[in-house]
Amino acid sequence: MSLPRFNPFVETLAAPPIPSVFAWTAAYDGRNGPMIDLSQAVPGYPPHPEMLRLLGECAASRAWTGYGPIEGEDALRRAYADHVRGVYDAGIAAANIHITAGCNQAFICAAMAVAGADDAVLMTDPYYFNQETTLAMLGVRTRLAACDPDNGFLPDVEALAAAVTPDVRAIALVSPNNPTGAVYPPRLLGEIYDLCASRGIWLILDETYRDFLPEGAGRPHDLFGRPGWENTLIGLYSFSKSFCIPGHRLGAITAGTAAVEQIAKIMDNMQICPPRAAQAAVATALPALAGWREENRREIARRAIALRETMAAAAGWKIGAVGAYFAFIGHPFSGVASADVAERLAKKAGVLCLPGSYFGPGQEGYLRFAFANADADTIALLRQRLSGFTLD
Amino acid sequence: MSLPRFNPFVETLAAPPIPSVFAWTAAYDGRNGPMIDLSQAVPGYPPHPEMLRLLGECAASRAWTGYGPIEGEDALRRAYADHVRGVYDAGIAAANIHITAGCNQAFICAAMAVAGADDAVLMTDPYYFNQETTLAMLGVRTRLAACDPDNGFLPDVEALAAAVTPDVRAIALVSPNNPTGAVYPPRLLGEIYDLCASRGIWLILDETYRDFLPEGAGRPHDLFGRPGWENTLIGLYSFSKSFCIPGHRLGAITAGTAAVEQIAKIMDNMQICPPRAAQAAVATALPALAGWREENRREIARRAIALRETMAAAAGWKIGAVGAYFAFIGHPFSGVASADVAERLAKKAGVLCLPGSYFGPGQEGYLRFAFANADADTIALLRQRLSGFTLD
Repeated sequence: MSLPRFNPFVETLAAPPIPSVFAWTAAYDGRNGPMIDLSQAVPGYPPHPEMLRLLGECAASRAWTGYGPIEGEDALRRAYADHVRGVYDAGIAAANIHITAGCNQAFICAAMAVAGADDAVLMTDPYYFNQETTLAMLGVRTRLAACDPDNGFLPDVEALAAAVTPDVRAIALVSPNNPTGAVYPPRLLGEIYDLCASRGIWLILDETYRDFLPEGAGRPHDLFGRPGWENTLIGLYSFSKSFCIPGHRLGAITAGTAAVEQIAKIMDNMQICPPRAAQAAVATALPALAGWREENRREIARRAIALRETMAAAAGWKIGAVGAYFAFIGHPFSGVASADVAERLAKKAGVLCLPGSYFGPGQEGYLRFAFANADADTIALLRQRLSGFTLD
Repeated sequence: MSLPRFNPFVETLAAPPIPSVFAWTAAYDGRNGPMIDLSQAVPGYPPHPEMLRLLGECAASRAWTGYGPIEGEDALRRAYADHVRGVYDAGIAAANIHITAGCNQAFICAAMAVAGADDAVLMTDPYYFNQETTLAMLGVRTRLAACDPDNGFLPDVEALAAAVTPDVRAIALVSPNNPTGAVYPPRLLGEIYDLCASRGIWLILDETYRDFLPEGAGRPHDLFGRPGWENTLIGLYSFSKSFCIPGHRLGAITAGTAAVEQIAKIMDNMQICPPRAAQAAVATALPALAGWREENRREIARRAIALRETMAAAAGWKIGAVGAYFAFIGHPFSGVASADVAERLAKKAGVLCLPGSYFGPGQEGYLRFAFANADADTIALLRQRLSGFTLD
């Protein structure tokens, strides 16, 4: 009589990283003041009162208690299609949108739509850890192409091209990047799109942090306007960061209708439909709170400036990359594991961030700071905490 | 230059069945009165006003806008553990509970925790179609053991035992059953549990319709009280039916802490956390609305009686099984595909239900009636609609 086993693809995964990091806070004695939490990417400001009012109103209504369309509420698909059309100046319709319960779910659906066990997906190193663990638990192989720190952690098209083995079904990118914050230029994204199109593979592009691109940066890229984009591109997005409502779990996929059809089959099995009341609320808030989101874009930009100033004065520390929402920070302790640095930084200095090693095998020299979580005054406190920090 | 392909495990799945069936309603001209919708399992009565008030209050609060624990809110895990402890008279703690966004998600998480591509899961024929398609899209093989209509569609332990090939990692059961409504007796569940334990495989037991068991039926089974149950049993549940809130997407897994740990890794990738405001609301409603749920249990029992009366008077039609929520109805058109019967029944007679073929290869002679959707007066109308129905 033997005990049943777990799926080895799941059992061999490490425990989810964020709760492990949160556990370090209990050991910080508060000597430098309150913990500065730069770990999980959550906006440090509250949702707009109108957002909360809408969420409450919709959740109290019987209208949203039944099952809804698998692909999402028509009103939100239309509102988001309008939004996407404006951002990219491209002909996106409601039929191109599939609503999900957050962007992790958008990624797993997109990944499953194009790759099964023993297929492979090509990612950058560093990568967003949940994308790597999602593929691993599905038995999908991961290929990695390193990003050069000396090039601001931008992906290298030659390196990507060389890593497209015959089993690769897609390249998965995140821009603005998590963890580095790097914003991929439109031309670079265009070259990677061309690579995918020429090799007959998908480009899965996660743009969760798109709303925090610098003001006046122009279109993030022109890919949704290219003829036949539906046969190459799958775009991912999250309402969590822009509306400060991650607890309500809402994200979106923008894709060709054939891909939406495949994803609906997956979502029917995974969830039947996304949570409805929040969809109804965000459908109204998306146009209504556009001005508020612009203010937040400027606020996050001020925080990026504050971070640059702070880090310039922290001896031995350097910014590897900084952009929308995140910075990838080189720590001064050469040869020490990034997890050890991050753990001691939390417990001794009161700065909570994620080790570079969570984002790929080549990232031991770095830490991810989700600087958007903290206001400029709090970011200014980092200088003292980092400058005075030693490992002993 | 070739176009990228979709994952064949997904591409070969049929389109989600419920929307296809809904599409038939447009072709019904209303000649017999309003469509009687017995298709999707949704309660035909509204949620309790206090449930809506709680949902609205929690959704309007900033307290639930951030990310929450992957495993679910502590308050709901505790409240549901208390509930489960009461139902089964067993030592279930909050640490044994993982909250999910509905029971389909509970199933995919449980399945992924124990089986990967090229493993197999053993199901009954008929099965709940989303469980079959979930396994198929993961590349998990399905083995089937037929249920005998002459034995009320109860699974046969010998048939299950014979179907446990070496690649089978789990048996997946639903009791009360979807689609048949059959309630599996505690002793039968005990025998299947023993089979699983002796063969070193998991028993995944979906009890979504548990709250609609006949009054005074006693404990559904004693499995959560067995020594070492954590190494064999994974229980699934949905708050959707009992609280009439499927649109808010909440379900639960009851399992050993080692299984909860594996499932948390999956859920982190799939969703980060379940929708939080609804969890907070249901944590309060679970004890508060116990009396209301008992009333509903009695109401559904009255509907089952009404269905038995109606069907006894519908010539040529027979009840294959009837129980909590569902009945599996033998139609009189021998040799005609169940999808053809269901489609014409919808378009001509104004009765919407699901074809037996959606639930397994051996079920062409049957239709699933989700009779709990309709009140007793509406169910009484079925007699006339069915008796007067012909295929031409």
